[in-house]
Amino acid sequence: MPLFDLPPESLRDYLPQRDEPADFDGFWARTLAEAGAFDLDPVFTPYDTALRAVDVYDVSFAGWGGHRIGGWLVTPKAEGPVPCLVHYIGYSGGRGFPHDHLMWPAAGFAVLVVETRGQGGQNNQRPGVTGDPHGGSFAEAQGMMTRGILDPEEYYYRRVFTDAVRGVDVAAAHPAVDAGWIAVGGGSQGGGIAQAVAALRPDVRAALIDVPFLTHFRRAVEITGRDPYQEIVRFLATHRDGAERVFRTLSYFDGLNFAARGQVPALYSAALMDEVCPPSTVFAAHNHWKGPKEITVWPWNGHEGGGGFQREEELRYLRKLADGR
Amino acid sequence: MPLFDLPPESLRDYLPQRDEPADFDGFWARTLAEAGAFDLDPVFTPYDTALRAVDVYDVSFAGWGGHRIGGWLVTPKAEGPVPCLVHYIGYSGGRGFPHDHLMWPAAGFAVLVVETRGQGGQNNQRPGVTGDPHGGSFAEAQGMMTRGILDPEEYYYRRVFTDAVRGVDVAAAHPAVDAGWIAVGGGSQGGGIAQAVAALRPDVRAALIDVPFLTHFRRAVEITGRDPYQEIVRFLATHRDGAERVFRTLSYFDGLNFAARGQVPALYSAALMDEVCPPSTVFAAHNHWKGPKEITVWPWNGHEGGGGFQREEELRYLRKLADGR
Amino acid sequence: MPLFDLPPESLRDYLPQRDEPADFDGFWARTLAEAGAFDLDPVFTPYDTALRAVDVYDVSFAGWGGHRIGGWLVTPKAEGPVPCLVHYIGYSGGRGFPHDHLMWPAAGFAVLVVETRGQGGQNNQRPGVTGDPHGGSFAEAQGMMTRGILDPEEYYYRRVFTDAVRGVDVAAAHPAVDAGWIAVGGGSQGGGIAQAVAALRPDVRAALIDVPFLTHFRRAVEITGRDPYQEIVRFLATHRDGAERVFRTLSYFDGLNFAARGQVPALYSAALMDEVCPPSTVFAAHNHWKGPKEITVWPWNGHEGGGGFQREEELRYLRKLADGR
Amino acid sequence: MPLFDLPPESLRDYLPQRDEPADFDGFWARTLAEAGAFDLDPVFTPYDTALRAVDVYDVSFAGWGGHRIGGWLVTPKAEGPVPCLVHYIGYSGGRGFPHDHLMWPAAGFAVLVVETRGQGGQNNQRPGVTGDPHGGSFAEAQGMMTRGILDPEEYYYRRVFTDAVRGVDVAAAHPAVDAGWIAVGGGSQGGGIAQAVAALRPDVRAALIDVPFLTHFRRAVEITGRDPYQEIVRFLATHRDGAERVFRTLSYFDGLNFAARGQVPALYSAALMDEVCPPSTVFAAHNHWKGPKEITVWPWNGHEGGGGFQREEELRYLRKLADGR
Amino acid sequence: MPLFDLPPESLRDYLPQRDEPADFDGFWARTLAEAGAFDLDPVFTPYDTALRAVDVYDVSFAGWGGHRIGGWLVTPKAEGPVPCLVHYIGYSGGRGFPHDHLMWPAAGFAVLVVETRGQGGQNNQRPGVTGDPHGGSFAEAQGMMTRGILDPEEYYYRRVFTDAVRGVDVAAAHPAVDAGWIAVGGGSQGGGIAQAVAALRPDVRAALIDVPFLTHFRRAVEITGRDPYQEIVRFLATHRDGAERVFRTLSYFDGLNFAARGQVPALYSAALMDEVCPPSTVFAAHNHWKGPKEITVWPWNGHEGGGGFQREEELRYLRKLADGR
Amino acid sequence: MPLFDLPPESLRDYLPQRDEPADFDGFWARTLAEAGAFDLDPVFTPYDTALRAVDVYDVSFAGWGGHRIGGWLVTPKAEGPVPCLVHYIGYSGGRGFPHDHLMWPAAGFAVLVVETRGQGGQNNQRPGVTGDPHGGSFAEAQGMMTRGILDPEEYYYRRVFTDAVRGVDVAAAHPAVDAGWIAVGGGSQGGGIAQAVAALRPDVRAALIDVPFLTHFRRAVEITGRDPYQEIVRFLATHRDGAERVFRTLSYFDGLNFAARGQVPALYSAALMDEVCPPSTVFAAHNHWKGPKEITVWPWNGHEGGGGFQREEELRYLRKLADGR
Repeated sequence: MPLFDLPPESLRDYLPQRDEPADFDGFWARTLAEAGAFDLDPVFTPYDTALRAVDVYDVSFAGWGGHRIGGWLVTPKAEGPVPCLVHYIGYSGGRGFPHDHLMWPAAGFAVLVVETRGQGGQNNQRPGVTGDPHGGSFAEAQGMMTRGILDPEEYYYRRVFTDAVRGVDVAAAHPAVDAGWIAVGGGSQGGGIAQAVAALRPDVRAALIDVPFLTHFRRAVEITGRDPYQEIVRFLATHRDGAERVFRTLSYFDGLNFAARGQVPALYSAALMDEVCPPSTVFAAHNHWKGPKEITVWPWNGHEGGGGFQREEELRYLRKLADGR
Repeated sequence: MPLFDLPPESLRDYLPQRDEPADFDGFWARTLAEAGAFDLDPVFTPYDTALRAVDVYDVSFAGWGGHRIGGWLVTPKAEGPVPCLVHYIGYSGGRGFPHDHLMWPAAGFAVLVVETRGQGGQNNQRPGVTGDPHGGSFAEAQGMMTRGILDPEEYYYRRVFTDAVRGVDVAAAHPAVDAGWIAVGGGSQGGGIAQAVAALRPDVRAALIDVPFLTHFRRAVEITGRDPYQEIVRFLATHRDGAERVFRTLSYFDGLNFAARGQVPALYSAALMDEVCPPSTVFAAHNHWKGPKEITVWPWNGHEGGGGFQREEELRYLRKLADGR
Repeated sequence: MPLFDLPPESLRDYLPQRDEPADFDGFWARTLAEAGAFDLDPVFTPYDTALRAVDVYDVSFAGWGGHRIGGWLVTPKAEGPVPCLVHYIGYSGGRGFPHDHLMWPAAGFAVLVVETRGQGGQNNQRPGVTGDPHGGSFAEAQGMMTRGILDPEEYYYRRVFTDAVRGVDVAAAHPAVDAGWIAVGGGSQGGGIAQAVAALRPDVRAALIDVPFLTHFRRAVEITGRDPYQEIVRFLATHRDGAERVFRTLSYFDGLNFAARGQVPALYSAALMDEVCPPSTVFAAHNHWKGPKEITVWPWNGHEGGGGFQREEELRYLRKLADGR
Repeated sequence: MPLFDLPPESLRDYLPQRDEPADFDGFWARTLAEAGAFDLDPVFTPYDTALRAVDVYDVSFAGWGGHRIGGWLVTPKAEGPVPCLVHYIGYSGGRGFPHDHLMWPAAGFAVLVVETRGQGGQNNQRPGVTGDPHGGSFAEAQGMMTRGILDPEEYYYRRVFTDAVRGVDVAAAHPAVDAGWIAVGGGSQGGGIAQAVAALRPDVRAALIDVPFLTHFRRAVEITGRDPYQEIVRFLATHRDGAERVFRTLSYFDGLNFAARGQVPALYSAALMDEVCPPSTVFAAHNHWKGPKEITVWPWNGHEGGGGFQREEELRYLRKLADGR
Repeated sequence: MPLFDLPPESLRDYLPQRDEPADFDGFWARTLAEAGAFDLDPVFTPYDTALRAVDVYDVSFAGWGGHRIGGWLVTPKAEGPVPCLVHYIGYSGGRGFPHDHLMWPAAGFAVLVVETRGQGGQNNQRPGVTGDPHGGSFAEAQGMMTRGILDPEEYYYRRVFTDAVRGVDVAAAHPAVDAGWIAVGGGSQGGGIAQAVAALRPDVRAALIDVPFLTHFRRAVEITGRDPYQEIVRFLATHRDGAERVFRTLSYFDGLNFAARGQVPALYSAALMDEVCPPSTVFAAHNHWKGPKEITVWPWNGHEGGGGFQREEELRYLRKLADGR
Repeated sequence: MPLFDLPPESLRDYLPQRDEPADFDGFWARTLAEAGAFDLDPVFTPYDTALRAVDVYDVSFAGWGGHRIGGWLVTPKAEGPVPCLVHYIGYSGGRGFPHDHLMWPAAGFAVLVVETRGQGGQNNQRPGVTGDPHGGSFAEAQGMMTRGILDPEEYYYRRVFTDAVRGVDVAAAHPAVDAGWIAVGGGSQGGGIAQAVAALRPDVRAALIDVPFLTHFRRAVEITGRDPYQEIVRFLATHRDGAERVFRTLSYFDGLNFAARGQVPALYSAALMDEVCPPSTVFAAHNHWKGPKEITVWPWNGHEGGGGFQREEELRYLRKLADGR
C-alpha cells in the first residue's frame, strides 16, 4: 500500500476549516437532556466464566430513547475501587467475550465495554447483543452510516453518541469503579465515539483516540474508496439530490467539531497508509484538539495502526495519568 | 461461470421436503389482521413529468405498523380502468423514476411499484424514499436479511410482505385500475415477494416470479457464497449459537412454504448459472407451486436471467390472461 | 471511489491544446462523400409487440461501405410527424428490445436507435444484430478500439461515425418523423458518437452528450486504467513501436476536434468519480464546444453518471427546444 | 487451484459421444478447395538480426480468401534441407520476435511460425502483424471466439484453420525445409489448430498437441468460467435464442471431430488443474485420436501445463521420429 | 462461502488410509535424541510491563540444532506452581505482546508461548523474534512450507516440531509451573504442532487441536486452492519431477500419522466452510486419534472456526481436566 | 494502468540524494575478501540435450560461505573463445532449462546463467536448484526480501551479490569463454544484481540493467503497493520499531549507491507504467551512473518493460561493443 494522502511532513500543520452548525452545542445539550429523561437503570449481572482473576458482569442500561444497551464490565480482583476505561468498539463489532477484554484489568483498571447499537452481527469474532430499535426514516445504504442521514435528529450516531455518553455514568455507578477516575477510548469507530464523548463529558480523565473514524467527513469521502466512509458515497451516488442535507447532518457529528471542544488529555494515533481513516483526517482532529495531546504515528501501517505497540502506548499513557490520582 | 448446482436434467423433479412451522397460516393470518387495524390511507399525488403518454402518481400508503410506504402508479392514457401489475423491487433498489416503469403502461396495463422499506439507498440508478422505522431488536449483519432474524415477529420481511400484500389493495383503490384484475410480479427479491403475496392473496390473477430470492433458505445458504443470502451466513458465523432460532424464523418466510399454497397462474424463470438465486432453489418452489405454472429456463445466464427476453415472456403471459377478462 | 482527476474547481477552465491533423475536415468530407455513393436504402419493417402505445419498426439501412446497419424506430401513436431523437449506444451494447426505448415516445418524441456495428454480442441485456463485415487490416487487441488503428482510413470508428451520420437521414426518411427536427444523443460511446455526428451534421437540433467516450484520447489513456480506453494501452504495450501511428489515427476521431466544430445546442454531463471517461476529458470537450452548451456535474458518481436524474435533465432540455418548433 | 474436473483416474476412459454434422468432411473439403483457388504465393524475405546461428525469413503467404498471413521461418545453418515444425500460436499472441523461436533450430529443425489472423495485438511480449480482413456478419462478443459464430461458413476459425493448413505448404515451399518431413504443433489454441491441421493433412509426420483449446466445446463451456471459452458463454448469455445455431457451427470446428480423424503420431499433454482447457476435454480428444498417441499428464499445473518439461518431451518425441527419416 | 468438502454427514466416518513411512517412529526418536545433545538452556528474563496481575518472562531456549527459540511465559500471580498450557502459533505469526496472552493466566494457568522459527515477520499484529538459521538446501517457494521439502532430514518442520517438543521441557523448568501438569494447544499451524507434540510426548495432559493445519497433506493440496497448503502446489507445479520426493518427506510430518499415535485427551475443532484447513482433513485426524477425544464443529465458519466460542470450550475443557490434578 | 509516478518529463533530471553508509566500500571489500577464502571450485558438467547447435554445461560453484550455486553455461559451437554474458535472474525464478537461454548463443555469445540462492521454487516455468543454506537470524516476512534485514552482515542480498560477483570468475574459468570480454545483465532483480556486480567488478565490459529492482528502496516502498518491495513494508508494518535498522541495512545494498560507482557502459531500461519497479527509481540510478549510459523508455508498459524489443536493443548494444574486441 503506497502513501496516498498529504505528504507526511505537512500533516503536523494541517488545520482545515471546520464546518460547524450554529446550534452544535445546543443540539447536543438538548439531545443529552432528552435522553436524561430516561432513567439510566444500569444492571450488572455477575457472569460466570472460568476466569478467576477478574470479576465479570453482563451489563445493560437504558441508552437513547430508553433502549437497552449491552456491554461487559470486567474488573480486577482488587480491594477498593479502581480507575476505569470505558471502551467503545470498532465498526460492525460487538462486545465479544469477557476474555477479549483482559488487558486493562490485568493492568489494574476496570474496563466497561459499551456496545454500538445494531452492530455486532457479522464480524465473526466479536458477537454483539444490542439492537437499534429506532429504525430509519428513509431509504438506507447497507450498513449504519446512512441510517437517518437526511436529518440530524434522526441520524444513527445521535443515538450512538448518546448511549456512549451514558456509558460513562454506567461505569461510575458500579462500586468496583472509582467514579472520579474514568477515561474513554477505542479504535476506529470506537476512537471516533471516544472523541465525541470526551468533548461532551469534560469530566472524563483522558481519551484514547486510536485511528479515529467519523472525523473530517467531507475530506474522507473524497479521498478514500474504502468502507465504511464509502457507504456515504454510495448513498450520495444514488440520492444525487441529497448532498446538502447529508453534509448538514454530518456537521453535527463530525469529529473535527468535537475535537475543537476537547479539553482533557488525549492520546491520538494515525497510520500513514491507512485508507480507511486517512491520516490527514486524524491529524486534522488532533490539530484542532484543545486539550493536552500526543499523537503516535505509524508510518508503514494501514488501518491496523500500531496494533499491540499502540496498546502498550495506551497502557503507559493511562498508567501515568492514573498513578497520580 | 460454470454450472455449479444440481445437474440440469434433475431440476424438473427436484421436490425437497419443506420445513414448515405448525402455525404458518396462523402467523400470517394474525400478521395481516393486525396490520389491518391501520387504515390503508392510500394517497395518489399527481406527479408532473415530461411524459405525455402516461399519468403518473406519487403513491404513499400505510403499510405494516401504519408506516408510510412509497411507490409510483403509472397508468396509460385510457378510457376506463385497465388491468394492473403490482411490481415489487429487487434487493437494495428503490422505486427509481417514472420513466423506469413504462413497459407495462405501453402494453395497456397500469403498474403500481411498491417500495421495499429501508431499501433504495445505494443502487445508483433507482433511488427509494421509504424507511423502515421499526429498527431491529438485536445485533445485525449489514443489509436487511438479518434484521430481527432471531424472532419471526420481529423479522424484517414480516413487515415487507405485509406492505406488499396491502399494495394490492392500494392498486385496487385507484379509479384507473380494474380492481378485479390485478397481478403481482417482480424479479429476485421482487419475485420472492410476489410469490408470497400471491399465496396470501389468492384473489390476484397471476404471479410473475422471476429468479426469485427468499426461497429454500437452508439450501441456498449452503450452496452459494454470494450476497444477499451470504448476509445470513455472516450472521451465523458470528452468532454461532443462533442457528436454530434463525432457521425457525426463516421457516415463516421461506418461498417454499408460500409456493405450496400458491393457486393462481404463475410464470417462473430460473437461470442455470445463477449463483445469487441458484436454480435448484427456484425449481424447488416451482415444483411445489399448486396452481397452473410455467417456468422459463435460461441455460447460459447468471442472476440477470432472461433479461429483456423474460420481459417479453411476461408481456405475452399477462396479455393472454388479461385479454380474457 | 476517491476523486482522482483534476481538482473539481479547475475543470471549468480546463482547455487543453488539441492535436488536430491538417486535413481533418477533408478527411471527413471525403469519407462521408464516399459513403454517399451507396444508396441509403432505409427499410422500416413493422414489428409486432404487445406494446399498444407505440409503433415499432425493425430498421435496416446501408451504412459505410453499403453494409446493413440495424436499429429500432419507436414512435408514439400520434397524428402527424413528431420530433425525433437519434440514439447511439454505449460500448458493447446492442439495440436490445423495443421495450428498452419507451421513454422518448412516452414524451412525444420518436426515437431511432442506431446500432454500433459489431457490438451487441455480450452485454447480457441488450443484444445487437449488426456485424462489421470490414474486418481489420492488422493485429488487434480484444474489443473494437484498435481495429485498424494504424491507419485512419481503416479505423473502426471511421465506419461507425459514418453509419451514425447516415442514421440522421434514416430518421428523416420516415413519415412519422418531423424531418426538420432531429436531435442526436447517447451516453459514453453513444455520447462520443453523438458529439461527432452533431459536428458533422450541423442541421441537427441538439446533442445530448452524456459522459462521452472517445474524447481526449491522449489524456484518457494516461490517467485511467479502465476499459475500454485501456484496450488502446494494451495495443501500445505490445506494439511498442506503434504509438506515433496510433495517435495520428486517433486525432481524426478525437471528440475534442469534433467539439471544436460543434455549433448546435449541447447538453453534456460529467461525473467526478468516473474512471471510465474521466471528468477532465469531458470538460475538455465541453469547454471547446462552440455552440450553446450546458453541463450537468455529478460529484459522487462513477461512469453511471446522473442515471435517471440525467434522463430527466435530457427530457427537460429537449422538450424545451422542441416546444419551440 | 484445487482439482475441479472428472476424477483423474477416470480420464483415461473418458470417451464422450461426439456431435458431428453429416457433412463435416464435405464442409472441409469444400473449404480447402475454395481456398486453393488462391495462389499460395509464399514470400520469404530475409530478415536481418544479430543472430548468427540461424537464418531468419519474414514470411507472408495467401491464406483463406487470399488474405496475407504473416509468420517467421527460422532455420538452422545447415547443409541441405532439414525437417520442419509448423508452429501455431496460443490465443491472442502474435509471432513475436525471431529470438522467441530458437529452440527448434538449435535442435536441427526449421520452424515456421504461422500467425493467427487478427491476433497479436495485446499480449505484451509477442506482437503480431496479421489482420483478419473478413470481419463479422453479426454482433460479436469481445475476442475472436464468436466472430461469425451463427454460421459455419462465416465462423472465424474456418479462416484460421484454412490458413494453418496452407502453412504446411508454405513450409514445404522453402528450399531449406525437407518437404517430406513436416510436423505441426502448438499449445492451447496452437494445439487446437495443430490437431485440426493434422486431421486435414494426413501427410504431416506428427502433431504436438499441448493443452489444446477448441476441443469438446459443449463440455468446456459448462465446466469452466475462464476465458476464452467464456467468450462463447457471454454471447449465449446475450443472444439467449442463439444456442442451437452456435453449437451447430461449433460442431464443424470441434477438436473431438478432428481427433476422430487423426492418423499421424500425436503427443498430447493435459494439466489436471487447468481451468482454461480442462483436462477432460483434452483426454476426450486424445481418447478419440485414431493414430499412434501419447499423453503427458501434469498433475499440479494449470494451463501452463508442463512448460519447459513439455518442451523437452516434444524435442525428444520429434527427434526420435525425425531421426528415422 | 458455500460448503465445498465432503457432505457434513459423512465426516464422522471419514477414516482415510494413512501413508506412513516404515521408519516414522525411528525418524522421530532419532531426531529428538540428536536435539537432546544440545543443552536446553532455558532463560527466563523478567519483562517489565504495566500488567500487574501477571508475571511476564521473555523466554529463550535452545531448540533444534541449539538454535535460540523465543517466547513468552505469562503466569498468574499465584502461590505455588500452576498448570500450564504450552501454546503454539498460527502460520506466519510471532509471539506478539504479553497482553496478547492473558486469557489462560486469568483462568489460573501459566501459558508458555513458543515461537515458530523464521515466522513472525509479517502479520502486522504479532511480531516474532526467532529466526531459522538453518536455511534451505534447495530452491523454495515463498513461505516456509517447502523449505527443505525434498528431504525429511532437511524439512523445515523437522526443526519446528523439535523446538515445540522441547518447549514442553522449558515450561517444566520454570518454578511457577506445575511440571506434572502441562498441556499443549494452538490453532491452525499451532494446532498441527500441538497434535505432533502430543503424539511425541505422551506425558502431556491434553491437547487443544483447533482447525489443525499440516494434516492429511495429500487430500489438502488437491481440494483447496488456498495458502499455505498452496505453497506446496506452487512448488510441485514448478518442480514437476519432484512429487514423489515431496510426498515421501511429508509422510514424516503428516498430522494423520501423529494422530494415530495420540493417547492423551484431545479437543479438536473443525469448521465446515474452512477452505484453509478443510474439514475432512481435520476429521480424518480426529477419527484416527487413539486417545479420548472430542470435536467441536462450526457449521457456518471458515478458518476462523469457533473463535471466542472455541476459546470458551477450551477453557472449560482444560479447567475440568486440571481441576482433578 | 495509469501513469502514477513522477511526470515523465521530469525523470531525466531526477537525481535524489543517496543514503550511503560511510563504510560502504569497506563493507563490500571485506565481504568479497571473506568469500575469496573459499576456493571458487567451478564445475562444468556437460549436459545432454537434443540441442545440437550449442554446448550445454550444468554449472556449480562455491559462492558466499562456500555454498554451492547452480547455473547453466550455454555456448555456441565455435572455434575459439567467445564473449560471454553473465545473466542474473528475476525474482523467484530459477535457471529453468537450457532451451530457455538460446538467444545469446545464437548471436555468438556464451551465456552463463547464475542462480539466485533459495529462489526457483515457484514460478512454474523456470525451476531452480540452488538453496540458501544460511537461513535467517530473525523473523521474516514471506519471500527473500527481509531475510536478515536487521543486519547488513546477515542480509540475504549480501550472499546473493557475492555469489553474483563470483559468477564472473566462473565464466572466465571456462575455456569456451573469452575471459577478457565478459558482460553482466538481467531484468528486474537480475538487473539490480547486474548493477551491483558491474560496480563491484569494473573489469566487466558492460551492464544490461533492465527495469532494475533493489534500487532506491526508500522511495520504492513509499510509492508502490506491489511485491516484492511490499515484502519490506509488511515487515515494517509488523516490526514497527525496526525501520531505522532496516533502512541502515538496505543502504549497503541500494542500487543508487552501486550506480554512483558504475564506470562501465550501461544500458538501462524503464517502463513508465511499471508499478513493480517504478520508473523514478530506475531513472534515479541511471542518472547517478558514472559511466557511459543509455536508457530505453517504454511509455505504455508495466514491469514487462520492452520485452522482445528490449532484447533486440540489448543484442544490438552488446554486439556493437563486442565487435570491437
